[in-house]
Amino acid sequence: MSVLSVHSVLFVIFGTTAILLSLKALFLGAATAAARGKLKSFLNAEDAAWLGGVHKNPDPEVVARWGRAHRNDLENLLPFFICGLLYVLSEGPAIAGYVYCGAFLIGRVLHTGAYLGARPMLRRNAYTLGFLTIAIMGVHAAWLMAQRLLS
Amino acid sequence: MSVLSVHSVLFVIFGTTAILLSLKALFLGAATAAARGKLKSFLNAEDAAWLGGVHKNPDPEVVARWGRAHRNDLENLLPFFICGLLYVLSEGPAIAGYVYCGAFLIGRVLHTGAYLGARPMLRRNAYTLGFLTIAIMGVHAAWLMAQRLLS
Amino acid sequence: MSVLSVHSVLFVIFGTTAILLSLKALFLGAATAAARGKLKSFLNAEDAAWLGGVHKNPDPEVVARWGRAHRNDLENLLPFFICGLLYVLSEGPAIAGYVYCGAFLIGRVLHTGAYLGARPMLRRNAYTLGFLTIAIMGVHAAWLMAQRLLS
Repeated sequence: MSVLSVHSVLFVIFGTTAILLSLKALFLGAATAAARGKLKSFLNAEDAAWLGGVHKNPDPEVVARWGRAHRNDLENLLPFFICGLLYVLSEGPAIAGYVYCGAFLIGRVLHTGAYLGARPMLRRNAYTLGFLTIAIMGVHAAWLMAQRLLS
Repeated sequence: MSVLSVHSVLFVIFGTTAILLSLKALFLGAATAAARGKLKSFLNAEDAAWLGGVHKNPDPEVVARWGRAHRNDLENLLPFFICGLLYVLSEGPAIAGYVYCGAFLIGRVLHTGAYLGARPMLRRNAYTLGFLTIAIMGVHAAWLMAQRLLS
Repeated sequence: MSVLSVHSVLFVIFGTTAILLSLKALFLGAATAAARGKLKSFLNAEDAAWLGGVHKNPDPEVVARWGRAHRNDLENLLPFFICGLLYVLSEGPAIAGYVYCGAFLIGRVLHTGAYLGARPMLRRNAYTLGFLTIAIMGVHAAWLMAQRLLS
Protein backbone atom coordinates (compact mmCIF):
# COMPACT_ATOMS: atom_id res chain seq x y z
CA MET A 1 0.00 0.00 0.00
CA SER A 2 1.23 3.50 -0.73
CA VAL A 3 -0.21 6.77 0.54
CA LEU A 4 -1.71 9.13 -2.07
CA SER A 5 -0.25 12.60 -2.13
CA VAL A 6 -0.64 15.54 -4.49
CA HIS A 7 1.12 18.78 -5.36
CA SER A 8 -0.98 21.24 -3.31
CA VAL A 9 -1.20 24.01 -5.91
CA LEU A 10 -1.70 21.70 -8.90
CA PHE A 11 -4.47 19.91 -7.00
CA VAL A 12 -6.29 23.24 -6.56
CA ILE A 13 -5.71 24.35 -10.17
CA PHE A 14 -6.87 21.03 -11.58
CA GLY A 15 -9.82 20.82 -9.18
CA THR A 16 -10.98 24.36 -9.93
CA THR A 17 -10.69 23.76 -13.69
CA ALA A 18 -12.73 20.56 -13.42
CA ILE A 19 -15.40 22.25 -11.26
CA LEU A 20 -15.72 25.28 -13.57
CA LEU A 21 -16.11 23.07 -16.63
CA SER A 22 -18.59 20.82 -14.81
CA LEU A 23 -20.70 23.84 -13.93
CA LYS A 24 -20.45 25.11 -17.52
CA ALA A 25 -21.73 21.76 -18.82
CA LEU A 26 -24.46 21.74 -16.17
CA PHE A 27 -25.62 25.21 -17.23
CA LEU A 28 -25.61 24.21 -20.93
CA GLY A 29 -27.96 21.36 -19.98
CA ALA A 30 -30.29 23.77 -18.17
CA ALA A 31 -30.05 26.23 -21.08
CA THR A 32 -31.17 23.48 -23.48
CA ALA A 33 -34.26 22.88 -21.33
CA ALA A 34 -34.86 26.65 -21.04
CA ALA A 35 -34.65 27.03 -24.83
CA ARG A 36 -37.41 24.40 -25.13
CA GLY A 37 -39.56 26.31 -22.65
CA LYS A 38 -39.05 29.61 -24.46
CA LEU A 39 -40.11 28.10 -27.82
CA LYS A 40 -42.84 26.01 -26.11
CA SER A 41 -41.48 23.01 -28.03
CA PHE A 42 -41.07 19.86 -25.92
CA LEU A 43 -39.49 16.42 -26.38
CA ASN A 44 -42.11 14.79 -24.12
CA ALA A 45 -45.84 14.78 -24.87
CA GLU A 46 -46.67 15.28 -21.17
CA ASP A 47 -44.59 18.48 -21.06
CA ALA A 48 -46.44 19.94 -24.04
CA ALA A 49 -49.79 19.06 -22.39
CA TRP A 50 -48.72 20.51 -19.04
CA LEU A 51 -47.13 23.74 -20.27
CA GLY A 52 -49.33 24.37 -23.31
CA GLY A 53 -46.83 23.89 -26.13
CA VAL A 54 -46.15 21.49 -28.98
CA HIS A 55 -44.62 18.01 -28.74
CA LYS A 56 -41.67 18.06 -31.15
CA ASN A 57 -38.95 15.42 -31.43
CA PRO A 58 -36.21 16.03 -32.52
CA ASP A 59 -35.77 19.50 -31.06
CA PRO A 60 -35.94 22.60 -33.28
CA GLU A 61 -32.50 23.78 -34.47
CA VAL A 62 -32.04 26.54 -31.87
CA VAL A 63 -32.64 24.06 -29.03
CA ALA A 64 -30.57 21.33 -30.68
CA ARG A 65 -27.58 23.70 -30.93
CA TRP A 66 -27.52 24.20 -27.14
CA GLY A 67 -27.85 20.43 -26.83
CA ARG A 68 -24.93 19.74 -29.17
CA ALA A 69 -22.70 22.23 -27.32
CA HIS A 70 -23.68 20.48 -24.06
CA ARG A 71 -23.05 16.98 -25.42
CA ASN A 72 -19.66 17.94 -26.85
CA ASP A 73 -18.71 19.36 -23.43
CA LEU A 74 -19.56 16.12 -21.63
CA GLU A 75 -17.79 13.98 -24.25
CA ASN A 76 -14.56 15.89 -23.56
CA LEU A 77 -14.97 16.55 -19.83
CA LEU A 78 -15.07 12.83 -18.93
CA PRO A 79 -11.71 11.87 -20.53
CA PHE A 80 -10.16 15.15 -19.28
CA PHE A 81 -11.23 14.43 -15.70
CA ILE A 82 -10.04 10.82 -15.82
CA CYS A 83 -6.65 11.60 -17.38
CA GLY A 84 -6.16 14.75 -15.29
CA LEU A 85 -7.04 13.17 -11.94
CA LEU A 86 -4.65 10.30 -12.64
CA TYR A 87 -1.96 12.79 -13.67
CA VAL A 88 -2.38 14.67 -10.38
CA LEU A 89 -2.46 11.44 -8.32
CA SER A 90 0.70 10.27 -10.14
CA GLU A 91 2.41 13.43 -8.86
CA GLY A 92 3.20 14.65 -12.36
CA PRO A 93 5.28 17.85 -12.76
CA ALA A 94 3.25 20.88 -11.68
CA ILE A 95 4.31 23.15 -14.57
CA ALA A 96 3.07 20.74 -17.24
CA GLY A 97 -0.11 20.26 -15.20
CA TYR A 98 -0.78 24.02 -15.17
CA VAL A 99 -0.33 24.13 -18.94
CA TYR A 100 -2.74 21.20 -19.47
CA CYS A 101 -5.40 22.76 -17.24
CA GLY A 102 -5.03 26.21 -18.78
CA ALA A 103 -5.07 24.92 -22.37
CA PHE A 104 -8.14 22.74 -21.75
CA LEU A 105 -10.03 25.52 -19.95
CA ILE A 106 -9.32 28.01 -22.76
CA GLY A 107 -10.15 25.42 -25.44
CA ARG A 108 -13.49 24.48 -23.93
CA VAL A 109 -14.63 28.04 -23.15
CA LEU A 110 -13.80 29.06 -26.72
CA HIS A 111 -15.54 25.94 -28.04
CA THR A 112 -18.82 26.83 -26.34
CA GLY A 113 -18.62 30.43 -27.51
CA ALA A 114 -17.82 29.34 -31.06
CA TYR A 115 -20.66 26.77 -31.08
CA LEU A 116 -23.29 29.20 -29.84
CA GLY A 117 -21.95 31.95 -32.12
CA ALA A 118 -21.83 29.65 -35.19
CA ARG A 119 -18.13 30.26 -35.88
CA PRO A 120 -16.98 26.93 -37.33
CA MET A 121 -13.22 27.52 -37.74
CA LEU A 122 -12.81 28.76 -34.17
CA ARG A 123 -14.96 25.84 -32.97
CA ARG A 124 -12.76 23.30 -34.78
CA ASN A 125 -9.56 24.86 -33.46
CA ALA A 126 -10.89 25.06 -29.89
CA TYR A 127 -12.00 21.42 -30.06
CA THR A 128 -8.58 20.41 -31.42
CA LEU A 129 -6.81 22.25 -28.58
CA GLY A 130 -8.90 20.34 -26.00
CA PHE A 131 -8.44 17.05 -27.85
CA LEU A 132 -4.65 17.37 -28.05
CA THR A 133 -4.43 18.43 -24.41
CA ILE A 134 -6.29 15.32 -23.23
CA ALA A 135 -4.27 13.04 -25.52
CA ILE A 136 -0.89 14.40 -24.37
CA MET A 137 -1.90 14.55 -20.70
CA GLY A 138 -3.25 10.99 -20.86
CA VAL A 139 -0.06 9.59 -22.39
CA HIS A 140 2.00 11.61 -19.87
CA ALA A 141 -0.05 10.20 -16.94
CA ALA A 142 0.26 6.62 -18.23
CA TRP A 143 4.02 7.14 -18.58
CA LEU A 144 4.28 8.49 -15.00
CA MET A 145 2.40 5.49 -13.66
CA ALA A 146 4.58 3.04 -15.57
CA GLN A 147 7.69 4.79 -14.17
CA ARG A 148 6.25 4.57 -10.67
CA LEU A 149 5.71 0.85 -11.10
CA LEU A 150 9.22 0.18 -12.38
CA SER A 151 11.04 2.32 -9.82
CA MET B 1 3.39 17.58 -1.76
CA SER B 2 0.54 17.06 0.68
CA VAL B 3 -1.06 13.77 1.68
CA LEU B 4 -4.71 13.24 0.68
CA SER B 5 -7.05 12.47 3.55
CA VAL B 6 -10.82 12.20 3.80
CA HIS B 7 -13.52 12.20 6.45
CA SER B 8 -14.07 8.43 6.85
CA VAL B 9 -17.88 8.49 7.07
CA LEU B 10 -18.38 11.15 4.39
CA PHE B 11 -16.11 9.15 2.06
CA VAL B 12 -18.36 6.11 2.47
CA ILE B 13 -21.60 8.10 2.12
CA PHE B 14 -20.35 9.90 -1.00
CA GLY B 15 -18.87 6.72 -2.47
CA THR B 16 -22.04 4.71 -1.89
CA THR B 17 -24.19 7.46 -3.39
CA ALA B 18 -21.98 7.62 -6.48
CA ILE B 19 -21.98 3.82 -6.89
CA LEU B 20 -25.76 3.51 -6.49
CA LEU B 21 -26.38 6.23 -9.08
CA SER B 22 -23.78 4.71 -11.44
CA LEU B 23 -25.56 1.37 -11.24
CA LYS B 24 -28.95 3.06 -11.76
CA ALA B 25 -27.60 4.73 -14.92
CA LEU B 26 -26.06 1.43 -16.05
CA PHE B 27 -29.40 -0.38 -15.62
CA LEU B 28 -31.25 2.37 -17.52
CA GLY B 29 -28.85 1.76 -20.43
CA ALA B 30 -29.55 -1.97 -20.34
CA ALA B 31 -33.30 -1.29 -20.02
CA THR B 32 -33.16 0.83 -23.17
CA ALA B 33 -31.59 -2.09 -25.05
CA ALA B 34 -34.12 -4.51 -23.51
CA ALA B 35 -37.01 -2.28 -24.61
CA ARG B 36 -35.68 -2.49 -28.19
CA GLY B 37 -35.53 -6.27 -27.94
CA LYS B 38 -39.09 -6.51 -26.59
CA LEU B 39 -40.46 -4.38 -29.45
CA LYS B 40 -38.12 -6.06 -31.96
CA SER B 41 -37.16 -2.57 -33.14
CA PHE B 42 -33.42 -2.03 -33.61
CA LEU B 43 -31.13 0.93 -34.29
CA ASN B 44 -28.71 -1.24 -36.27
CA ALA B 45 -29.65 -3.08 -39.46
CA GLU B 46 -27.51 -6.09 -38.45
CA ASP B 47 -29.46 -6.46 -35.18
CA ALA B 48 -32.79 -6.53 -37.01
CA ALA B 49 -31.41 -9.16 -39.43
CA TRP B 50 -29.96 -11.25 -36.59
CA LEU B 51 -32.94 -11.14 -34.22
CA GLY B 52 -35.74 -10.95 -36.75
CA GLY B 53 -37.09 -7.46 -36.13
CA VAL B 54 -37.30 -4.12 -37.89
CA HIS B 55 -34.50 -1.58 -38.36
CA LYS B 56 -35.86 1.67 -36.97
CA ASN B 57 -33.87 4.84 -36.31
CA PRO B 58 -34.77 6.91 -34.29
CA ASP B 59 -36.16 4.56 -31.64
CA PRO B 60 -39.92 4.26 -31.07
CA GLU B 61 -41.18 6.53 -28.24
CA VAL B 62 -41.27 3.87 -25.52
CA VAL B 63 -37.61 3.00 -26.14
CA ALA B 64 -36.60 6.65 -26.54
CA ARG B 65 -38.11 7.47 -23.12
CA TRP B 66 -35.81 4.95 -21.38
CA GLY B 67 -32.95 6.44 -23.41
CA ARG B 68 -33.76 10.02 -22.37
CA ALA B 69 -33.98 9.04 -18.69
CA HIS B 70 -30.58 7.32 -19.09
CA ARG B 71 -28.98 10.27 -20.87
CA ASN B 72 -30.27 12.76 -18.30
CA ASP B 73 -28.78 10.59 -15.54
CA LEU B 74 -25.34 10.57 -17.15
CA GLU B 75 -25.44 14.32 -17.84
CA ASN B 76 -25.94 14.95 -14.12
CA LEU B 77 -23.85 12.12 -12.69
CA LEU B 78 -20.61 13.35 -14.28
CA PRO B 79 -20.67 16.89 -12.76
CA PHE B 80 -21.94 15.45 -9.44
CA PHE B 81 -19.06 12.99 -9.26
CA ILE B 82 -16.44 15.60 -10.19
CA CYS B 83 -17.68 18.26 -7.77
CA GLY B 84 -18.41 15.71 -5.02
CA LEU B 85 -15.07 13.94 -5.21
CA LEU B 86 -13.24 17.27 -5.06
CA TYR B 87 -15.42 18.32 -2.11
CA VAL B 88 -14.50 15.12 -0.23
CA LEU B 89 -10.80 15.44 -1.14
CA SER B 90 -10.85 19.07 0.03
CA GLU B 91 -12.01 17.80 3.44
CA GLY B 92 -15.24 19.80 3.33
CA PRO B 93 -17.55 19.74 6.39
CA ALA B 94 -19.17 16.31 6.74
CA ILE B 95 -22.67 17.59 7.60
CA ALA B 96 -22.96 19.65 4.41
CA GLY B 97 -21.56 16.68 2.47
CA TYR B 98 -24.28 14.37 3.85
CA VAL B 99 -26.94 16.89 2.82
CA TYR B 100 -25.49 17.17 -0.72
CA CYS B 101 -25.36 13.38 -1.16
CA GLY B 102 -28.84 12.84 0.28
CA ALA B 103 -30.41 15.64 -1.77
CA PHE B 104 -28.80 14.43 -5.00
CA LEU B 105 -29.73 10.79 -4.40
CA ILE B 106 -33.37 11.71 -3.69
CA GLY B 107 -33.51 14.10 -6.63
CA ARG B 108 -32.17 11.57 -9.12
CA VAL B 109 -34.27 8.62 -7.93
CA LEU B 110 -37.39 10.80 -8.13
CA HIS B 111 -36.28 12.07 -11.56
CA THR B 112 -36.11 8.57 -13.00
CA GLY B 113 -39.46 7.61 -11.48
CA ALA B 114 -41.07 10.80 -12.76
CA TYR B 115 -39.59 10.33 -16.26
CA LEU B 116 -40.74 6.75 -16.61
CA GLY B 117 -44.13 7.59 -15.07
CA ALA B 118 -44.62 10.66 -17.31
CA ARG B 119 -45.12 13.08 -14.40
CA PRO B 120 -43.63 16.33 -15.74
CA MET B 121 -43.92 18.61 -12.68
CA LEU B 122 -42.25 16.10 -10.37
CA ARG B 123 -39.60 15.48 -13.04
CA ARG B 124 -38.81 19.20 -13.31
CA ASN B 125 -38.63 19.61 -9.53
CA ALA B 126 -36.44 16.53 -9.10
CA TYR B 127 -34.09 17.75 -11.85
CA THR B 128 -33.93 21.19 -10.23
CA LEU B 129 -33.05 19.66 -6.84
CA GLY B 130 -30.16 17.75 -8.43
CA PHE B 131 -29.05 20.78 -10.44
CA LEU B 132 -28.99 23.10 -7.41
CA THR B 133 -27.17 20.49 -5.32
CA ILE B 134 -24.36 20.17 -7.86
CA ALA B 135 -24.12 23.96 -8.33
CA ILE B 136 -23.89 24.66 -4.57
CA MET B 137 -21.55 21.74 -3.87
CA GLY B 138 -19.30 22.78 -6.79
CA VAL B 139 -19.01 26.38 -5.58
CA HIS B 140 -18.45 25.11 -2.02
CA ALA B 141 -15.65 22.78 -3.19
CA ALA B 142 -13.97 25.53 -5.23
CA TRP B 143 -14.14 27.82 -2.18
CA LEU B 144 -12.59 25.13 0.06
CA MET B 145 -9.74 24.65 -2.40
CA ALA B 146 -9.09 28.38 -2.66
CA GLN B 147 -9.00 28.58 1.18
CA ARG B 148 -6.57 25.68 1.28
CA LEU B 149 -4.31 27.46 -1.18
CA LEU B 150 -4.31 30.75 0.71
CA SER B 151 -3.85 29.27 4.20
CA MET C 1 -9.88 12.04 9.01
CA SER C 2 -8.17 9.04 7.46
CA VAL C 3 -5.33 9.07 4.95
CA LEU C 4 -6.06 7.67 1.48
CA SER C 5 -3.78 4.87 0.37
CA VAL C 6 -3.85 2.51 -2.59
CA HIS C 7 -2.30 -0.78 -3.68
CA SER C 8 0.57 0.51 -5.83
CA VAL C 9 0.24 -2.00 -8.68
CA LEU C 10 -3.56 -2.01 -8.76
CA PHE C 11 -3.51 1.80 -8.88
CA VAL C 12 -1.32 1.66 -12.01
CA ILE C 13 -3.36 -1.12 -13.66
CA PHE C 14 -6.66 0.65 -12.99
CA GLY C 15 -5.26 4.04 -13.99
CA THR C 16 -3.77 2.73 -17.24
CA THR C 17 -7.03 0.94 -18.11
CA ALA C 18 -9.04 4.10 -17.49
CA ILE C 19 -6.62 6.23 -19.54
CA LEU C 20 -6.57 3.80 -22.49
CA LEU C 21 -10.36 3.65 -22.60
CA SER C 22 -10.62 7.45 -22.25
CA LEU C 23 -8.31 7.87 -25.22
CA LYS C 24 -10.28 5.26 -27.19
CA ALA C 25 -13.50 7.18 -26.54
CA LEU C 26 -11.77 10.45 -27.44
CA PHE C 27 -10.58 9.03 -30.76
CA LEU C 28 -14.06 7.66 -31.54
CA GLY C 29 -15.37 11.22 -31.09
CA ALA C 30 -12.75 12.58 -33.48
CA ALA C 31 -13.43 9.72 -35.92
CA THR C 32 -17.13 10.67 -35.96
CA ALA C 33 -16.18 14.24 -36.92
CA ALA C 34 -13.68 12.94 -39.50
CA ALA C 35 -16.38 10.71 -41.06
CA ARG C 36 -18.56 13.81 -41.49
CA GLY C 37 -15.68 15.62 -43.19
CA LYS C 38 -14.99 12.73 -45.55
CA LEU C 39 -18.65 12.55 -46.65
CA LYS C 40 -18.93 16.37 -46.63
CA SER C 41 -22.12 15.94 -44.59
CA PHE C 42 -22.39 18.27 -41.60
CA LEU C 43 -24.72 18.62 -38.59
CA ASN C 44 -24.26 22.41 -38.55
CA ALA C 45 -25.29 24.68 -41.43
CA GLU C 46 -22.20 26.87 -40.88
CA ASP C 47 -19.89 23.88 -41.34
CA ALA C 48 -21.50 22.97 -44.67
CA ALA C 49 -21.15 26.60 -45.84
CA TRP C 50 -17.53 26.80 -44.67
CA LEU C 51 -16.30 23.46 -46.01
CA GLY C 52 -18.54 23.18 -49.07
CA GLY C 53 -20.73 20.23 -48.13
CA VAL C 54 -24.34 19.51 -47.29
CA HIS C 55 -26.14 20.26 -44.02
CA LYS C 56 -27.64 16.96 -42.92
CA ASN C 57 -29.20 16.19 -39.54
CA PRO C 58 -29.36 13.41 -38.41
CA ASP C 59 -26.00 12.12 -39.66
CA PRO C 60 -25.82 9.56 -42.51
CA GLU C 61 -25.62 5.97 -41.27
CA VAL C 62 -21.84 5.56 -41.64
CA VAL C 63 -21.24 8.65 -39.46
CA ALA C 64 -23.99 7.70 -37.00
CA ARG C 65 -22.37 4.28 -36.46
CA TRP C 66 -19.11 5.90 -35.28
CA GLY C 67 -21.24 8.17 -33.09
CA ARG C 68 -23.15 5.25 -31.51
CA ALA C 69 -19.91 3.37 -30.78
CA HIS C 70 -18.58 6.57 -29.15
CA ARG C 71 -21.74 7.19 -27.10
CA ASN C 72 -21.86 3.58 -25.88
CA ASP C 73 -18.23 3.92 -24.76
CA LEU C 74 -18.93 7.04 -22.71
CA GLU C 75 -22.09 5.53 -21.17
CA ASN C 76 -20.01 2.65 -19.83
CA LEU C 77 -16.76 4.48 -19.07
CA LEU C 78 -18.37 6.84 -16.54
CA PRO C 79 -19.82 4.13 -14.24
CA PHE C 80 -16.64 2.03 -14.66
CA PHE C 81 -14.43 4.94 -13.60
CA ILE C 82 -16.64 5.83 -10.62
CA CYS C 83 -16.98 2.26 -9.32
CA GLY C 84 -13.35 1.41 -10.10
CA LEU C 85 -11.83 4.49 -8.47
CA LEU C 86 -13.89 3.86 -5.33
CA TYR C 87 -12.83 0.21 -5.38
CA VAL C 88 -9.15 1.22 -5.54
CA LEU C 89 -9.58 3.92 -2.85
CA SER C 90 -11.35 1.35 -0.62
CA GLU C 91 -8.21 -0.79 -0.85
CA GLY C 92 -10.07 -3.73 -2.40
CA PRO C 93 -8.15 -6.99 -3.06
CA ALA C 94 -5.66 -6.52 -5.90
CA ILE C 95 -6.38 -9.82 -7.65
CA ALA C 96 -10.09 -9.10 -8.07
CA GLY C 97 -9.17 -5.58 -9.21
CA TYR C 98 -6.89 -6.95 -11.95
CA VAL C 99 -9.70 -9.21 -13.15
CA TYR C 100 -12.19 -6.32 -13.24
CA CYS C 101 -9.80 -4.08 -15.20
CA GLY C 102 -8.81 -6.85 -17.62
CA ALA C 103 -12.40 -7.98 -18.24
CA PHE C 104 -13.62 -4.41 -18.82
CA LEU C 105 -10.71 -3.55 -21.13
CA ILE C 106 -11.27 -6.69 -23.23
CA GLY C 107 -15.05 -6.17 -23.26
CA ARG C 108 -14.83 -2.57 -24.43
CA VAL C 109 -12.16 -3.13 -27.09
CA LEU C 110 -14.19 -6.02 -28.51
CA HIS C 111 -17.36 -3.89 -28.32
CA THR C 112 -15.85 -1.17 -30.48
CA GLY C 113 -14.51 -3.69 -32.99
CA ALA C 114 -17.86 -5.48 -33.13
CA TYR C 115 -19.78 -2.22 -33.56
CA LEU C 116 -17.61 -0.94 -36.38
CA GLY C 117 -17.54 -4.39 -38.01
CA ALA C 118 -21.33 -4.88 -37.70
CA ARG C 119 -21.06 -8.15 -35.76
CA PRO C 120 -24.12 -8.03 -33.48
CA MET C 121 -23.64 -11.20 -31.38
CA LEU C 122 -20.06 -10.32 -30.48
CA ARG C 123 -21.18 -6.76 -29.74
CA ARG C 124 -23.92 -7.93 -27.37
CA ASN C 125 -21.56 -10.33 -25.58
CA ALA C 126 -18.83 -7.71 -25.26
CA TYR C 127 -21.33 -5.19 -23.89
CA THR C 128 -22.63 -7.78 -21.41
CA LEU C 129 -19.09 -8.53 -20.21
CA GLY C 130 -18.50 -4.81 -19.53
CA PHE C 131 -21.92 -4.42 -17.91
CA LEU C 132 -21.45 -7.38 -15.54
CA THR C 133 -17.93 -6.22 -14.63
CA ILE C 134 -19.17 -2.78 -13.60
CA ALA C 135 -22.13 -4.22 -11.69
CA ILE C 136 -20.01 -6.71 -9.71
CA MET C 137 -17.17 -4.25 -9.09
CA GLY C 138 -19.67 -1.59 -7.95
CA VAL C 139 -21.36 -3.91 -5.45
CA HIS C 140 -17.93 -5.11 -4.29
CA ALA C 141 -16.75 -1.51 -3.74
CA ALA C 142 -19.94 -0.59 -1.82
CA TRP C 143 -19.47 -3.68 0.35
CA LEU C 144 -15.83 -2.76 1.07
CA MET C 145 -16.85 0.74 2.09
CA ALA C 146 -19.60 -0.55 4.38
CA GLN C 147 -17.08 -2.92 6.02
CA ARG C 148 -14.66 -0.05 6.50
CA LEU C 149 -17.37 1.98 8.20
CA LEU C 150 -18.39 -0.80 10.56
CA SER C 151 -14.87 -1.90 11.52
